[in-house]
Amino acid sequence: MGRLTGGDPSLLRRINSAVVLHALRATDCATLTEITRVTGLSRPTVEGVVEDLIVGGLVVETAAEDGATRRQGRPARRFRFRAEAGHLLGLEIGPHRVAALLADLDGRIIGAQAKEVEETASADDRLERLRTAVAELLRRAGVPRNSLRAVGVATPGIVEADGTVRLGTALPEWTGLRLGERLSRSFKCPVLVENDANAAAVAEHWKGSARDSDDIVFVLAGLSPGAGSLIGGRLHRGFGGAAGEIGALHLLGREVTPETLLSTTDEPLHPLDEQAVAQVFAQARQGDQRALAAVDRFIQRLVHDVAALALALDPELVVIGGWAAGLDGVLEPLRRELARYCLRPPKVTLSLLGEAAVATGALRLALDHVEKQLFAVEGTATARY
Amino acid sequence: MGRLTGGDPSLLRRINSAVVLHALRATDCATLTEITRVTGLSRPTVEGVVEDLIVGGLVVETAAEDGATRRQGRPARRFRFRAEAGHLLGLEIGPHRVAALLADLDGRIIGAQAKEVEETASADDRLERLRTAVAELLRRAGVPRNSLRAVGVATPGIVEADGTVRLGTALPEWTGLRLGERLSRSFKCPVLVENDANAAAVAEHWKGSARDSDDIVFVLAGLSPGAGSLIGGRLHRGFGGAAGEIGALHLLGREVTPETLLSTTDEPLHPLDEQAVAQVFAQARQGDQRALAAVDRFIQRLVHDVAALALALDPELVVIGGWAAGLDGVLEPLRRELARYCLRPPKVTLSLLGEAAVATGALRLALDHVEKQLFAVEGTATARY
Repeated sequence: MGRLTGGDPSLLRRINSAVVLHALRATDCATLTEITRVTGLSRPTVEGVVEDLIVGGLVVETAAEDGATRRQGRPARRFRFRAEAGHLLGLEIGPHRVAALLADLDGRIIGAQAKEVEETASADDRLERLRTAVAELLRRAGVPRNSLRAVGVATPGIVEADGTVRLGTALPEWTGLRLGERLSRSFKCPVLVENDANAAAVAEHWKGSARDSDDIVFVLAGLSPGAGSLIGGRLHRGFGGAAGEIGALHLLGREVTPETLLSTTDEPLHPLDEQAVAQVFAQARQGDQRALAAVDRFIQRLVHDVAALALALDPELVVIGGWAAGLDGVLEPLRRELARYCLRPPKVTLSLLGEAAVATGALRLALDHVEKQLFAVEGTATARY
Repeated sequence: MGRLTGGDPSLLRRINSAVVLHALRATDCATLTEITRVTGLSRPTVEGVVEDLIVGGLVVETAAEDGATRRQGRPARRFRFRAEAGHLLGLEIGPHRVAALLADLDGRIIGAQAKEVEETASADDRLERLRTAVAELLRRAGVPRNSLRAVGVATPGIVEADGTVRLGTALPEWTGLRLGERLSRSFKCPVLVENDANAAAVAEHWKGSARDSDDIVFVLAGLSPGAGSLIGGRLHRGFGGAAGEIGALHLLGREVTPETLLSTTDEPLHPLDEQAVAQVFAQARQGDQRALAAVDRFIQRLVHDVAALALALDPELVVIGGWAAGLDGVLEPLRRELARYCLRPPKVTLSLLGEAAVATGALRLALDHVEKQLFAVEGTATARY
């Protein structure tokens, strides 16, 4: 398609830098000749760019080759991308726990930390708990805070583009919280906030059960059920960031609350927390009739939620996460009922990442941000080929 | 961003041709100097391209200017895009009627034709009815069949990319029908087949109630309710073309059929056709208690359908079409209930195009196809600027 000539020289430099980094990152290490061949740039350009990248700390010359090669004369210098030049955090803030994942610039996870938190904890306490987890994680991994390039955060609720929680009923004091701004005080790098089910959808697509599909719905069955969807590989947030906030779906025509649904007595289940639910599931596995009936009602509701999502969105694949992923025999009724309700039923599978899905998705969003900065210049890089 | 140099010369010619056509179409008529200025092409290039376009019939030199200008010497030649150089059809094939719209290359509608058809008509009879309508329309408008550049067709059901109806329960013999192929026998130009609700969504976005929004859901409340959605201005078809096929939504947790829902007696409404439904609506307007109750049940179901779509997709705007658009007081309960169910309730409005929406959307799809051919070369044209 021809080549770019003329134009903004600093833009060209950034493009060339992104192209060289991209090439280096795709391989263990490479010589200048190899980089020149792969990128199509001139040798002097490559030399200049590599020199700049070495100064910037993103590229390093690797150790000399072994003796066999050296005997042939001076070996070609080899360079590699320094994935350790920066770090990323993926954070989850949930009703019962906060969790943090630490990764290098290749997205390779090098540490994890999680802490329980009271469901009733204030926003301040919850954030303090998270800060403690992050501090411990960084200290243990020996990564200085100023090495962080981006932080992704995932949490229940509708999240605005600026990181404010527009509406979050699952956590106390969450609605209206300027979460991105609050966390930015702890970090000097960009902080990206996302809805938890959206993050989990991204995670399953990255390294979970949805690696082979670009059109998926992830259902996070929990205290406050939510869903995230990818359309053509891209997160569908909706016009106001509320896509997949299906908490009210079960109310449509059927006035029944989760407390009643999952009760094994004549009283509503209280408190309705993950422990109480886990107990109902355990009782069901032991054959308790009332627990079995409760689980059956829970699955029926899940079927209805998933069917509504599938009818609206027509995904290729539905991934079930959260509570339901721990249920024996949840897939069979889901598949059977979807075949009944949907003109084109999607495939259904369980989450592969389990409770790591939300933080993993937050990490991926941080990685996306850094990759866009380092390896691409707003779609211009592709125009070069 | 620099200019393309080198590369495929025939590709460049096509790009230049698209760019000149695009410029001419945006204005009444223009001189070569004006085209040169707007396009950034050289004068000889513009002259060559315009000459080719005149030979191809897409551009014509307009009549000389009036006397005032002529006194100054020989007036500059002026050229205009010949919107009449080709024509488009937008076709609707529904349960009770077939309809056709005829337009020029600007998308300006120059004729319309509709015919009633029996709900029980065979596929052959239904298509024959459509062919008759088209033939009458073309004859009346004085447009020869070989002037057609593209035909859009919209019909209920799940439509494959190749124009086959994968599943269509609303019309007899519709499932499995190779609709695109069958209609291609009547036309020498491309025939594009689309789901009816999807087409209506496109139409409302083009010239209906959704002109100001790119994230919409259109609900076609009819015998077999369906929905179409635009995300970021683009049609969301779903992985298998079944997005919005919400016919089964009302079954989720509530086993009630439209026949029961809309009945004003103890017996199901039979036959459930538009006439019968119109009668129930008319009775309700006259204050008939049972009819009022039936309409109320119908609106409740519509509310549930729309709420499920809104929770899954989070559109900015929901447009209500089909039967429901004719109902007094449908908006108020919809808005009230959506505010109750949705964390971020969408705006709700009625279809502006009414029963013309489906055929208008089919026409827009034909126009999109022609515009892509004439005015753009697969996204390359934009790379030039």
